[in-house]
Parts: sequence; structure tokens; C-alpha cells
Amino acid sequence: MAQFDLPLAELEQYEPTLDEPADFDEFWAGTVAEARGHGDGVRVERVDSGLTEVTVDDVTFPGFGGHPVKAWLVRPARADGPLPAVVEFVGYGGGRGLPHEQLGLAAAGYAHLIMDTRGQGSGWGSGGDTPDPVGHAPASPGYLTRGILDPAEHYYRRVFTDGVRAVDAVRHLDGIDPARVAVAGTSQGGGIATAVAGLLPDVVAAAPNVPFLSDFRRAVQITDAHPYAEITQYLSVHREHEDAVWRTLSYLDGVSFARRARAAGLYSVALRDDICPPSTVYASYNAWGGSDKSIDVYPYNRHEGGQHYRFAPTLAFLRKHLGQA
Amino acid sequence: MAQFDLPLAELEQYEPTLDEPADFDEFWAGTVAEARGHGDGVRVERVDSGLTEVTVDDVTFPGFGGHPVKAWLVRPARADGPLPAVVEFVGYGGGRGLPHEQLGLAAAGYAHLIMDTRGQGSGWGSGGDTPDPVGHAPASPGYLTRGILDPAEHYYRRVFTDGVRAVDAVRHLDGIDPARVAVAGTSQGGGIATAVAGLLPDVVAAAPNVPFLSDFRRAVQITDAHPYAEITQYLSVHREHEDAVWRTLSYLDGVSFARRARAAGLYSVALRDDICPPSTVYASYNAWGGSDKSIDVYPYNRHEGGQHYRFAPTLAFLRKHLGQA
Amino acid sequence: MAQFDLPLAELEQYEPTLDEPADFDEFWAGTVAEARGHGDGVRVERVDSGLTEVTVDDVTFPGFGGHPVKAWLVRPARADGPLPAVVEFVGYGGGRGLPHEQLGLAAAGYAHLIMDTRGQGSGWGSGGDTPDPVGHAPASPGYLTRGILDPAEHYYRRVFTDGVRAVDAVRHLDGIDPARVAVAGTSQGGGIATAVAGLLPDVVAAAPNVPFLSDFRRAVQITDAHPYAEITQYLSVHREHEDAVWRTLSYLDGVSFARRARAAGLYSVALRDDICPPSTVYASYNAWGGSDKSIDVYPYNRHEGGQHYRFAPTLAFLRKHLGQA
Amino acid sequence: MAQFDLPLAELEQYEPTLDEPADFDEFWAGTVAEARGHGDGVRVERVDSGLTEVTVDDVTFPGFGGHPVKAWLVRPARADGPLPAVVEFVGYGGGRGLPHEQLGLAAAGYAHLIMDTRGQGSGWGSGGDTPDPVGHAPASPGYLTRGILDPAEHYYRRVFTDGVRAVDAVRHLDGIDPARVAVAGTSQGGGIATAVAGLLPDVVAAAPNVPFLSDFRRAVQITDAHPYAEITQYLSVHREHEDAVWRTLSYLDGVSFARRARAAGLYSVALRDDICPPSTVYASYNAWGGSDKSIDVYPYNRHEGGQHYRFAPTLAFLRKHLGQA
Amino acid sequence: MAQFDLPLAELEQYEPTLDEPADFDEFWAGTVAEARGHGDGVRVERVDSGLTEVTVDDVTFPGFGGHPVKAWLVRPARADGPLPAVVEFVGYGGGRGLPHEQLGLAAAGYAHLIMDTRGQGSGWGSGGDTPDPVGHAPASPGYLTRGILDPAEHYYRRVFTDGVRAVDAVRHLDGIDPARVAVAGTSQGGGIATAVAGLLPDVVAAAPNVPFLSDFRRAVQITDAHPYAEITQYLSVHREHEDAVWRTLSYLDGVSFARRARAAGLYSVALRDDICPPSTVYASYNAWGGSDKSIDVYPYNRHEGGQHYRFAPTLAFLRKHLGQA
Amino acid sequence: MAQFDLPLAELEQYEPTLDEPADFDEFWAGTVAEARGHGDGVRVERVDSGLTEVTVDDVTFPGFGGHPVKAWLVRPARADGPLPAVVEFVGYGGGRGLPHEQLGLAAAGYAHLIMDTRGQGSGWGSGGDTPDPVGHAPASPGYLTRGILDPAEHYYRRVFTDGVRAVDAVRHLDGIDPARVAVAGTSQGGGIATAVAGLLPDVVAAAPNVPFLSDFRRAVQITDAHPYAEITQYLSVHREHEDAVWRTLSYLDGVSFARRARAAGLYSVALRDDICPPSTVYASYNAWGGSDKSIDVYPYNRHEGGQHYRFAPTLAFLRKHLGQA
Repeated sequence: MAQFDLPLAELEQYEPTLDEPADFDEFWAGTVAEARGHGDGVRVERVDSGLTEVTVDDVTFPGFGGHPVKAWLVRPARADGPLPAVVEFVGYGGGRGLPHEQLGLAAAGYAHLIMDTRGQGSGWGSGGDTPDPVGHAPASPGYLTRGILDPAEHYYRRVFTDGVRAVDAVRHLDGIDPARVAVAGTSQGGGIATAVAGLLPDVVAAAPNVPFLSDFRRAVQITDAHPYAEITQYLSVHREHEDAVWRTLSYLDGVSFARRARAAGLYSVALRDDICPPSTVYASYNAWGGSDKSIDVYPYNRHEGGQHYRFAPTLAFLRKHLGQA
Repeated sequence: MAQFDLPLAELEQYEPTLDEPADFDEFWAGTVAEARGHGDGVRVERVDSGLTEVTVDDVTFPGFGGHPVKAWLVRPARADGPLPAVVEFVGYGGGRGLPHEQLGLAAAGYAHLIMDTRGQGSGWGSGGDTPDPVGHAPASPGYLTRGILDPAEHYYRRVFTDGVRAVDAVRHLDGIDPARVAVAGTSQGGGIATAVAGLLPDVVAAAPNVPFLSDFRRAVQITDAHPYAEITQYLSVHREHEDAVWRTLSYLDGVSFARRARAAGLYSVALRDDICPPSTVYASYNAWGGSDKSIDVYPYNRHEGGQHYRFAPTLAFLRKHLGQA
Repeated sequence: MAQFDLPLAELEQYEPTLDEPADFDEFWAGTVAEARGHGDGVRVERVDSGLTEVTVDDVTFPGFGGHPVKAWLVRPARADGPLPAVVEFVGYGGGRGLPHEQLGLAAAGYAHLIMDTRGQGSGWGSGGDTPDPVGHAPASPGYLTRGILDPAEHYYRRVFTDGVRAVDAVRHLDGIDPARVAVAGTSQGGGIATAVAGLLPDVVAAAPNVPFLSDFRRAVQITDAHPYAEITQYLSVHREHEDAVWRTLSYLDGVSFARRARAAGLYSVALRDDICPPSTVYASYNAWGGSDKSIDVYPYNRHEGGQHYRFAPTLAFLRKHLGQA
Repeated sequence: MAQFDLPLAELEQYEPTLDEPADFDEFWAGTVAEARGHGDGVRVERVDSGLTEVTVDDVTFPGFGGHPVKAWLVRPARADGPLPAVVEFVGYGGGRGLPHEQLGLAAAGYAHLIMDTRGQGSGWGSGGDTPDPVGHAPASPGYLTRGILDPAEHYYRRVFTDGVRAVDAVRHLDGIDPARVAVAGTSQGGGIATAVAGLLPDVVAAAPNVPFLSDFRRAVQITDAHPYAEITQYLSVHREHEDAVWRTLSYLDGVSFARRARAAGLYSVALRDDICPPSTVYASYNAWGGSDKSIDVYPYNRHEGGQHYRFAPTLAFLRKHLGQA
Repeated sequence: MAQFDLPLAELEQYEPTLDEPADFDEFWAGTVAEARGHGDGVRVERVDSGLTEVTVDDVTFPGFGGHPVKAWLVRPARADGPLPAVVEFVGYGGGRGLPHEQLGLAAAGYAHLIMDTRGQGSGWGSGGDTPDPVGHAPASPGYLTRGILDPAEHYYRRVFTDGVRAVDAVRHLDGIDPARVAVAGTSQGGGIATAVAGLLPDVVAAAPNVPFLSDFRRAVQITDAHPYAEITQYLSVHREHEDAVWRTLSYLDGVSFARRARAAGLYSVALRDDICPPSTVYASYNAWGGSDKSIDVYPYNRHEGGQHYRFAPTLAFLRKHLGQA
Repeated sequence: MAQFDLPLAELEQYEPTLDEPADFDEFWAGTVAEARGHGDGVRVERVDSGLTEVTVDDVTFPGFGGHPVKAWLVRPARADGPLPAVVEFVGYGGGRGLPHEQLGLAAAGYAHLIMDTRGQGSGWGSGGDTPDPVGHAPASPGYLTRGILDPAEHYYRRVFTDGVRAVDAVRHLDGIDPARVAVAGTSQGGGIATAVAGLLPDVVAAAPNVPFLSDFRRAVQITDAHPYAEITQYLSVHREHEDAVWRTLSYLDGVSFARRARAAGLYSVALRDDICPPSTVYASYNAWGGSDKSIDVYPYNRHEGGQHYRFAPTLAFLRKHLGQA
């Protein structure tokens, strides 16, 4: 993929005009309040993973609609004192996988909660365990157009709420310091992290890697790659629903969430990324409301971005904002 | 696509060993009974399509769970006396589309009901209008693995039931002769038609074109093409669910439905079809329980099979079994 | 396909500079006159299609060089009084197919003539029946470079003339109102319709959908997709024939025909269409010489454009200009 | 391309059952006689190619129907005494190209005639100069189905006749020894060489490299690759013409020509060739009627086969059968 | 990828006839002895990875020719007493990457040495750090045909020797129990592990996942996928080197190494794997010389095989043969 | 490939800003001097190619490091007096092939030396015979990143030096006029020719066809095609080596060599070439230091450019600058 988006200097200034709905905050405040109304009953079960240096817990917490959502919690085996926690969201189509897959943060001393994405987890990797009990009107293959005609019905309304509730849940767990919680994620996971940071301004730090789910109009204009192309496919069939589609997406745009975030932010972007084009990432980053923010640029990468190279700067970022474990 | 499946002579003898569950009939009898318990309230609204030689009705009938399912009913404008009816099901990913798209059967004097497939209709064509209000556990992209761990939860349990209810509905409509109803469909539509013919042995005739949804084990073994490959994808992630998957599919196999059918059957098969491989079509055809059956073979075609060439033999078949309109 | 052509605002103003030959009108007047010199002997044979609400005639009329050209004429079975007629041309590689394939216009009360494209019809669909008895110098695969070194030898000189003669023919048929004839077509069919409307200014209405065959230089510059790429392929081999190629094409450009049209015009364009890029469609539309013109834009579609969604606006357009049937 | 065809041991025994028409010899005798009735007027024009060690002549001879066919004749500049000649036919889609492209045989002391293939030459390479003035009924893209419904109309009837006439022509030229003429060619060129060797048993030697145009039924069964797939494509549209297609091809099958050949034969075959599958090559080779025959096998190659490695064994073969130049 | 190789029952019996050279053992004994002649000077440098629960050492040991080879050694931070060790080799094109990438074995209490593959590491992932200072004759892209004309020059002679020396090195390190060493690896890593187990029969356990580098003739016959296809590509160009190529590969075949192994063996195989086709994996497994062996079969996977699902059975296998850490 | 690079008018003005290193000349002077220090021992062996009009010599000369490099020398058989010579370099992945492959220049009276490219020759064609005895650090597949971290280690340092030494060698051969030597080549061969012309200003003429290896930064920016994409791939893995990579390439850029050339220059460029994008070709051409230069533009071609059409203008160019043979 050659560099197909704006030059870097323009990306750094790029700020799209969004038609953010007037009741955006009201919509989300109501959504979160309703979800919290289902209570805080978190279930934690110790898992025998065969690992000796970390412990693994199978966590079940109430998400949107009180629906049970699964997560892994991985921690150092010999921790004493409450730990800072990182809540991580996963990429499109994947699930929380198996608990030994991501050990880096626990091996660095953090409590690491990896949230399942409802209904996902059968596309790649090692699977997910969380149903989405809500059905949908005709939708193009994937998740992005499920409920696309009404923001209240949209799939990501439920997922973002699950993300908020994941932070709520981890803050209630034993051995966790509720004041020191960060959110993180790659691609879709970065999009969810952005939304959660926007909805929970007291999250301390957020690390969206090559985030998905922002500046939808530009994305649809500039790329044919999935998952953004699900919107194009939907509109190519349902030619009459254009207005409804854009209205619904205006409640879900990462740019709107980024504006509301107050956490420290560490982004990354890949300049040859046609899955999450750099302008859509910068749209979110440039809008970020936290005072301490930075972005790492990978000029030669596609959507894989920094991959394992993200670990060291992310760890440094977490050390700075969450402190030592 | 070269001829990759069995030679024709072997196809004509091909009968797979299926592990049909002992409670297959019970499962489906209970399913249909439960759906019928939601009543027969069909809504019919005349649509102004601009057409002068046929009329179009927008039909809404109660499907599985009583959920509203949409259909078009197209009829000759100047019909006098009750008409024989053809209930048609559509291919994977499509919806009922726009009412003027399929005028051949109405222009030949039949009442033609085209049923929407719940949740589908945004993949290609002109769209669908029927939600599937039921959610699902993690599933690979598509519909074939939604609810794959439990036959009671599986997506096609709902769809096949919708198909039965579509026949129920058309039999209740004014101007239709309930004794002269046929089912038809291409690909997924052929698979649904097979299931409905198996569940409603008093359907007079069935015309499955290159049908999908039969002999799943062979399909998964022999082809990489979607949608059968959704099963492969699911099992490639959820390596531990193999038994549950095959058990669920054993309640949905077109071969089991074909055995129970008593209608006249007109199949077609394409020998270079990797979407619905010829052996899976013959598995269904060879099992067909109706005494009057035949199959048209297209040796040089892929999944498109006979396409518009199907119209003339299908019309002759309908004339023979439904009589003149 | 992302939006790769000009932004919509620029498309609406786009007018390429063409090097239209001085003898363009002379060339075409002579061509049409010569063809008409072969007489008006149209043969019409009623076909038993099995349809009861419409009749089908197999029409053979003299095209370019007097060569016999086939068409289907489909009409309401119970028409009384002369009908307005729509002459339709088909897309690249296809033929007139089977007579039941397109019943919408007849079901709306019109006489519908579907012309075969000489030599085509074996690429997709249900086939064609019209030979092109004229050979050609070396040409790249396809039809666009047959006779490319001399406008008098070019394939589309013959096809456009066939189109003119199709209108001539339909006007001579019993039961047709010769004053109320429209032309229509999609892609190549739209290109032929444009040419015919330019050559027969008394055609009442023309509906080119995503038309092919206009602004060749821009097309070759901006897209790699076939069939325009046949020109590129030819010139990539015959590097010495560049001038001859562009000269020949200057006699065939849809923009030149559009300028000469006086019919009402209803265009459509798809903004992600790489087969018939939007700028080439707008080049034709913006040049259209009829006073009543409009264009429907499909921002999310590729070459399929509006597909079945075209039926309703086209029917409204025909009602307005041809009157009720 | 893995080895997809029969194992080598079975290839060496492979002899398909052909339904060769009873009047095969009559058909071709009449065809050749008719062509020869157009006279032997060959035009030879010296070309200034800039080459000093060889001379180049632009040859025009009367082919099928007396149509002018072009060829290059390349010879050593300092030849004294009549030369043995090699008549070469080119691959599908190409033309005779530019005269300096193939200098090996002339540099080895032979007269080398490279015949243009009528109507071809714009697909790749440096072009061709020979029109095919005969038109055709609807045909799939390419040449293989032009005139497919009638052997008298088929494109390759004309081309094979051109090949015969090329040998006739070269035998009449000054400086050529008419008793020492060989035919050669790769792919389509090998198929033409086979046909000419079958029609002119007094040709001394023939060297078909990975020849095309034999055992059509097997080819269509086993490969999807073009150009054989043109037949599949045609039949996938014109589903009703199956018998006519196979009848026509039975007059054109390389196996039938190979049976009639009496020349020494040097074949080559590539075991991973999906364009001209090895079984179709062996079908021709195993039928070859000349007593001195051999075949070189390239186990790791696709259709490129031996490429430049063919030069040395071909030169040895020519030295043996044509003698030193 | 459908199941393209032998059925499972035949795979379980599959034993190819190999032409193993008579001096195979001599060749390898000499090779290893020569490498060991370069001494055992291992350099170990503690790395600050930011991880708190494990330690990371950057290890440099003398490989083939005494060339310095890099590895990571990851161990639990709080280990007391000598640890059992797992020496792991990486997949084709990758390098040892970054030290935090694979923490599972260390988190389970083992010393985990990940060896760089010389010259590789720039194809994917996070890179490698080990040059291959030896050049090569013309080779197809990749590593498999470097030195293909002479076993003494072949690339994998050097790599397998590096693998032996990695085990030598780890056995000399402080804190490691030299009697409890296992080898493991996926794909190319599995091939190297097999070779090392064959060359060092006192290795306790070996876990080749979907191993590469065995039964080359079958691989070349049955698959087009890289890297095995590098051999095909080489032979498609160097048509004269067939014998030399097969001779060289006969010194490198995993089947020959597997015969000589005495370690416990845990294999895995994926039945839709076209990179390392199942028959080539079974060729190695069926030949395995250790008395305790088993193989896990993934019927629905391609080359990814069990992926993260391999961790649990591998850990159980290590617990059994290496004991608790 | 549509025209994706700058418009022609801008190409003609395009001059990138390069960061040419201050010690560029010193680096190369030292490199050439060191190579020449290995002596001029050229070995020439007459080959029996079967050709009668030309002679073929197998030439071995000392290249970089004194490593033996192979070449073919093809000459008219009946030459009297010393001949002007053309030294040709071949395209990426290929070797010198077989001696009969390129006979045009010898048939036009020139001595034609075709140099093997070390380590290449197994990717396509008929092979090469020259090892590269130097190994390398981790590199992406291909040759462009071998030694990428240090200009002294880079692969093309060796190859360009081989090219200089090829000219040195040909000038020492019997029957060659050392004052009349030209260099030529296509793609990589054109890049090498450019470098040699820059390093040997007394070369009389240079003909780089669609040359590779210039303006690397632009190439990496604008195209995804290989081989330039090898740089992208390397940097996508080794994210930390960006500066070192660009520094190394600054010693190898064709623009820097073109500036230093004094020979007459005949370039060609293809406007749809994504392998060697036109701007990178113009960057070299516009910098060319010789006073007599021209460029032929192929607007409709991809990387094949003029192909065989290059022969005539190249021959005219050679006649002008080397004189008649």
C-alpha cells in the first residue's frame, strides 16, 4: 500500500467537520445509566492455566442490558498491594482468546483485563465466549451496520457500554487500585478505548493503537477495505437509507468521544493503513481532549502498525501515568 | 472451475451416510407447532408499483416466534378465480428486493409469493425488510454458524419455520387455491424450499435449483467456497466445538428433509459449482421422497447453473403439477 | 472502489475538449442513408413463451449493411390501441437473452423491443442470436478495437447503425405509435442509446444508465478496467497507431452524439464506477442537447449503479414523455 | 501449479477415444483444394531491418479464401545455395511481431518463415498485420468459439489452411529447398504445426512445443484456464448448443491431425501446464503417425515449458532431419 | 483450502520411500564436529525489558563456522535451582523478534531460549539480529535453494548446525539443568527442532508443530505454496540441475532426522495445510524414532494449525518429560 | 494500470532533492580502485552453440573483490577489424541465460557482452552462473536490502562494481575497439548501466530502458510493487533502522550516477509503469550529465515499456555514437 492518504503535514492539521447531534451527551448518559441500573454483580473464577508466575481469573460482568460479558484478568502471582489495571479491548472479529496469549502487561506488574467483544470471536484467533443476545434488521456481513437505522439499536452502542462497564467492574475487584485504571486496544479495540475514555473522563490513561471507528464519512470516501466498507456495501444496497445511516453513525464517532476524553493519550498511526486510514486516526487524535497526548507514526506499515514495537512505548506511558505496579 | 467433484455416473448413485438424530421429527414438529401457536394474522397491503398488468401486495405474516416476516405477492391483474401459488425463497444474503424484479410467474398466470429471509438482504440486490430479532453467540461472519452450538438456537431453525409459515399464509389469502401450492428457490432458496417440502408433505411441487444446505460434512470436506466455508472457519477457531457443530447441523440437513418430502421434485445441478457442490445437490436429490422427480444437469456451469434457462422447464413442471392458472 | 474520480461538484461542471472531426455529421448521415438503402423488411414471428399476460415476438430487421438483426418485442397481451415503445440496447458481451427476462416495461403497458448486439451474447447471460458478418484486422480481445484504424471499419459504426434501424423497425410495426418511441440501455446499452438519440433527434426520450462509450481519452487515462482498457491494450502493443486510434474513436464518442440529441434525457451515474467512470458519464450528460434532462447519482455504487432501483424513476420518466400506454 | 494431471506413466499410455467424423479427410481435402484454387501469388519485399548478418523479407501469400496472409522470412545474409526452411506459427493472441525478435534459426543457417495468425496480434508482443476478413456469430471472447456451430465456419479451419498455404508459399520461394521444410510452433503455434503436418504428410519434420488444440473434451474437463475455457464459457451460456460444439471441434482436433502426420516429430510437454494440460499433449503425441518421434518432459514447468532450453534440442532435431543449411 | 491431501487413515500409514544417502550420518557427524571445534564461548547480557516477573538475557553463541548466533533467554525472575529449558526455533522469514513476545513458557516456570535464524528476520514480525556471512550461487527468492547444488553449501546445513549449537549453549548456562532440555518450533521451527532431535538423541523431548522441511519430493508434487515452491521455481529455471537438487535435499530431509530421534515427540498437523501438507508432516511423524510419540490433528485448519491451542497440550507434554520447573 | 504518477509535463520538469553524501565520489573511487587491484585476468572460452552466423564466447572476468563474474560475448562470425561493443546488464532476478537468446546486436554487427548478475538468475528465464560469495544480515526477500545498513556492505555496491569491471574486461578483449563501448540494459539492467556510465565517464553511449534503482524515496512513497517494495517491507519490520537505510541508499541512487555521466543517453519510460514509476525514471533522465540525450515515452505501457520496439531506435542510437560495426 503506497501512501494514499494526506501527506503527514496535512494529517497533523486535519480536523473534519462533524455533524455531532445535539443530544449526543444525553444519549450516552442515558445509555450508561440504564446499563448501570442492572447492578454490579461481577463473577470471578480462578482458572488453572498451568502458569506459575501469573494468575488468571475468568471474569463475568454485566454489560449493556445487564447481559453477561466475559473477560480474562491476568495478574502477577506474587503481587502485594492493590495493582494498577489496564482494560484492553480486542480487534474486529476476535474474542478474548486464551488467557496465556497476552502476558506482557502482567509480567510487567499490571492487572490486565481483556474484555470479550459480544457476538465476536469466531473470525480469527482462539475464540470468544460472549453472546450478543440482541438481533437486528437486515445488515451487511459484519457488525458495523447492525442496527444502522437507529442509534438506539446500533451494535456499537452495546459494545461501548460494555467497555464502560468493564472499567466499572475492574474498579470493584479485590487487589485493584480503582484510581489507577487505563484503557487500551488496537484497531476496533482502540475505537472502544476511545469511546470509553470519552464516557469516563476519570480514566487515567488511554492507548488507542491504529484506532477504528472514527470519521466515518472520510473513511467511506477514501477506502474500500473492510470493515469500513460494510457501510458502503449497506448503502450500495439500501440506497434510500443514506440519511438514517449517517445520523446513526454521528452518535458513534470516535472524534466525538475523543473531544470528551481527559485522560493522557498515546496514539499510534500507520501511514499505509487502508483499514483505518491515517486521516481518520488523526481526526480522533487531533480532537483528543486530554492535555498530555502524543502519537507514534509508522510510515512504512499498513494496519499492523507498530505491532510488538508498541510494547515498550506503551509500557513507558503506563509507568508514567499509572505508576509502578 | 474444472469438474472437481465426482463423475456424473457416481453422482447419480451418491448417498451419504448421515447421522440423523432420533428426535428429528419431534424437534421439527414441536418447532412448527410453537410457531403456529402465534396465530395466522396475515397483513396484506396493495402497493402502487406502476405496473398495469400485475398487482403487487406487501404481505406480512407471523414467522418463527410470531416475528413479522415480509413478502411480496405478485399476481395477474385480471385473474378470475383462485390461482395456484408458488412460494419462493431467495438466495444467501439477498432480500425480497423490489416487487417488479421477478414478474415471470405472474406473467404466466400464477400467484407468486417471494419471502424475505430474516436478517438478510443487505449483501446484494435491492434489499430486504425483515429483521431477525434473535441475537447469537460468537459466530463466523454470515448466518450459517449463528446458534451453531444448539439446534434450538440455530438461525436456520427460524428461517425454515418462516418458510413453513409462508405456505400457511399464502393458503389463507383471498384468491389463492390452497390445494395448489408449490415451493421454489435457488441456492439458499432451494435449501429452504427443500426443508419446507419436507415439513409440509402436502405441498404439491418443489423446485430446488442448485440447492444449498445439504450434506454439510461433504461440503466442508470438498469446497472452500462460502457460505459452506463459514462452518470451516468457525471450527478453525473453535477447535473444541466440533461435536456440537455437527450435532446441530444434523437437524438442518437438506437430505433429511428431502427424504420426508412427498411433492413432485424438479432439481437442477451444475457440475462446476463450488458453492453448492454437485455431490451435495445429488445427496438431496437422490434422497427425495416424492415419486415424481427429475434433475436437470448443467455440465459447463458454476453456481449460476441454468439461470434464465430454468424458466421454461420450471414453467412446464408447474403447469403439470399445479395446472393452468 | 473508493471515490477515485473528480468530486461531485467538479463532475457537474466537467466538459472535456474533444477533437470532433469536421465531417462527423456527414460520416453518420452517409452511414445511416446507406443502411436504410437496404430496405425496411422486418420479419415478426410470434413465440410461444408460456406467458399469458404478455405476448412475445421474435423480430428480425435489417441493420447495417442490411445484415439481419434480432430483437424481442414484448407487449401486454390485452393491449388495445397503438402502444408507445421503448427500444432497449444491452450491456457489453450480452445478447437479447430469453424473452421472459425483462417483463417490467411490458407489465407497465409498453411495447418493449430488446435489440441483440451483433456478434455479442456469449459472454454472460442467456445468449444472443445475431452474427456480425464483418471480419477485422488484428484487435485486442473484445469489440472496442475491431476496425480501430478506420472509422468506416469500426465495429460500433455497425452497432450504432443497427440501433437506428431498430427504431426505424419498431416504428413500422403494427400496434406501435411511431411518434412515441424512447431509447434506453445500461452501460454499452446506454452508449448505443445515446448514439441513436444523437442520430435520430425525433426520438422522444432517452434513458442512458451508467453509459459506456464516451470521452475515451479520459477513460483510458483514469481506469484500467475493461472494456475501456481494450484501447490501452491495443495501444500497448501497436505503439505506432496512436493517432489512427484516436481519430477513429472521435467518430464514435458519446459526447458528440449527446450534443446532437434533442430528446428528454434521464441519466444515471455511480460515483465508484471504474468501468464507466463518472467523469465520462458526466461528459456525455453535460453535453446533452435535449432541454429536459436530469441525472440520478449513486454515491456508494460501482458499475451496478441503481440496478433495480432504476425502474421506478425510469417508469415515471416514460410516463411523462411517452404518456400512459 | 502442482502436478494436477495424470502421473507420467499414465500419460505415456493415454489415448482418448475420439469421435472423429467419417468425412474428416474429405472435409479437409476440399478445404485445402479450394484454398489452392486462389493461386500461388506470393509477394516478397526486402525490409531494411538494420541487421547486417541476416536478411529480412516481408512475405504476403494467399491463405484460406485467397485472403492475404503476412509472414517474415529471415535468412543468413551470406547464404549460397538453396536453404532448408522452418515454417513457424505463433502462440495465441500474438502476431509475427518485429523481424528481429527471432533470429536463432537464421543465425543457425536456416530460412525461417514466421507466419502471422489472422486477426490475432494485438494481445501481447509487437503486433500482427493480417486481418481475418470473415465475421462470426456470437462467440465468447477469443477465437476458439468463432464459428463454433459449423466446422465450415470455424476460425481454425481458416488458420490451419493458412498454415498449409504458408508451406506451399515457402516452397515456391527463391533460395529455398522445397524438399527440406519443417514446421514448428509453441502452444497455438504447436497446434497449427500439428494440423499442417497432418494435412501435408511430405513435411519432413515437425516440432510442436506444448501444443494447444487437441483432445478438447479432456481439456474442458480438467482445466479452467484460457483459451480452452472459452469453450466452457460458450457452453455455459449457450446451454443448448452442446452437440453442435463438439461436432465442430471433432474436425479440428490435433489428435486426428497427429494420426495422419508422417514427419519426424519432436514434442515437448510441461507437467504443471494448466493452459495445455499434459494429457492433451500426450493425446496428440501418442497418436503421432511419424515413425521417428520423441518428447521432452519438463516436470517443474507450467506452460512456459522448456522456453529457451528448447533451442538446442530443436536445432539438433533440425540438423538431423533437414541437414546442415 | 479443502482437504486436498490423503484421507486421514492413509496419512496415518504414509511412509515415503526416501533415497537417503549412505554417508548421511558421516556428513552430519563431521558437520557438528567441525562446528564444535569453534569452541563454546557463549555471551550472555542481561536486558532491561521493563518486565518485572521474568528476566531477559541476550545470548550470543557460536553456530556453524563459529559464526555468532543470537537468541533470547527468558526466565522467571524468582527461580531458585536449575531450570529445565526449552530451545525454540522460529518460522520461515521471521527472527527472534522482541523478548516480550513469547512469555508463556517462562511464565510457566521454564527457561526459554528463542534462537534467531541466520539471515532471516526481515520478512515479518519484529526482526532478527543474526547475519549469515556465507554467500551463495544463483538461488530462487528465499532460503531453500541457497547452495542447493551441494549439501556442504546448503543454507540449512548451517541452520541445523546452529540449532545443535543452541542446545549445546543452553546446557552450559548457569541456572539451567543440562539433562532437561527440550526442542520446539512451528513450521520451519518444527523442521529445525526435528533435525536437532535427530542429531542430538539425548534431547529429552521435541515438539514440532506443523513442521516444514520433510519429504521434499511429495511436497513439490502436491503443493504450489511457498516455501516448498522455491524448489519448483529453481528447477523450472535450472532444468539441468534436477539430480543435484534432489541429492542435496536428501541430506536435509526431516524424515531422516526423525528416524534418528530418541526424544519423546509431540507433533501437530493441520489437514488443510498447503504450506506444510499433512502427508509431509506424517512422513516425519511416522518415522519418528522416539518411543513416546503422539500427534494432534486439526482437521479444519490451514497452516496456522492449533495456534494458541497448542499451548496447553505442549505444557502438559513438557511437564511430563521435563518435570516441574 | 491507469496513469498514476505525475502528468507528463510535470515529469519533464521533475527534479527531486537528494541528500547525496559528501563522500560519494570518494566512496566509489575507492571501491573501483580496490576491485581493479584484483587484476585483469579475463578468461574467454569459445562455446559450440550450433549457431553459424555468430560466435559465442563464455567470458569470466574479475568483479568486485576479484570474484569471478560470467558473461556471454556474441559476435558476427565473419567480423574483420575491431568491433564496437555493447555491454548489457539484465533485469532483476534473471541471469545471462542461454547465448542464443539475444542475437539482435550481434546480427547488426556489434560485439555484445551480456553480464550475469551475481547471485541472481534463478527467478525466471534460463538461469545464471555467477555466485555472490558474500553473505548478509537479515534482509527482506530479494536483493535490495542485503547489506542495507551499511553502504560498504550493500549488494549493489558489488554489482555496480561488477558492471564497471565488465567494461574494463571487454576493452581488453581481442577484436574489440576499446574506444567504442556502450552500456545498456532494461529495468535493473538500466540501473546498472546508469551507474556504470556515472563511474566511467568515457563510456560513449548508454541506453537505460525503464531503469530501476533511482530516486528511492519517491519510489517507496508512490508504489507498492516489487522490488522497490523490498525497502518498504524491510522498514515495516525494522522500524528502528530508517536513517541507516536511507543513508545507505544515498550511495546507490541512479540520480547521483546520472549527474556524473558524460555519455550520450537514450532513455525510455512507460507512463503506466508501477515497477519503475515514471517519476523515478525522469529523476534520472533529467539529471543526466551527457549533452546528447533523449527519452522515448510509452504512454500506454506498464513496465514492459517499448519491448521489441526498443530495438530500432536503440540501433539507430548505437549507429550514431559507436559508428557502423
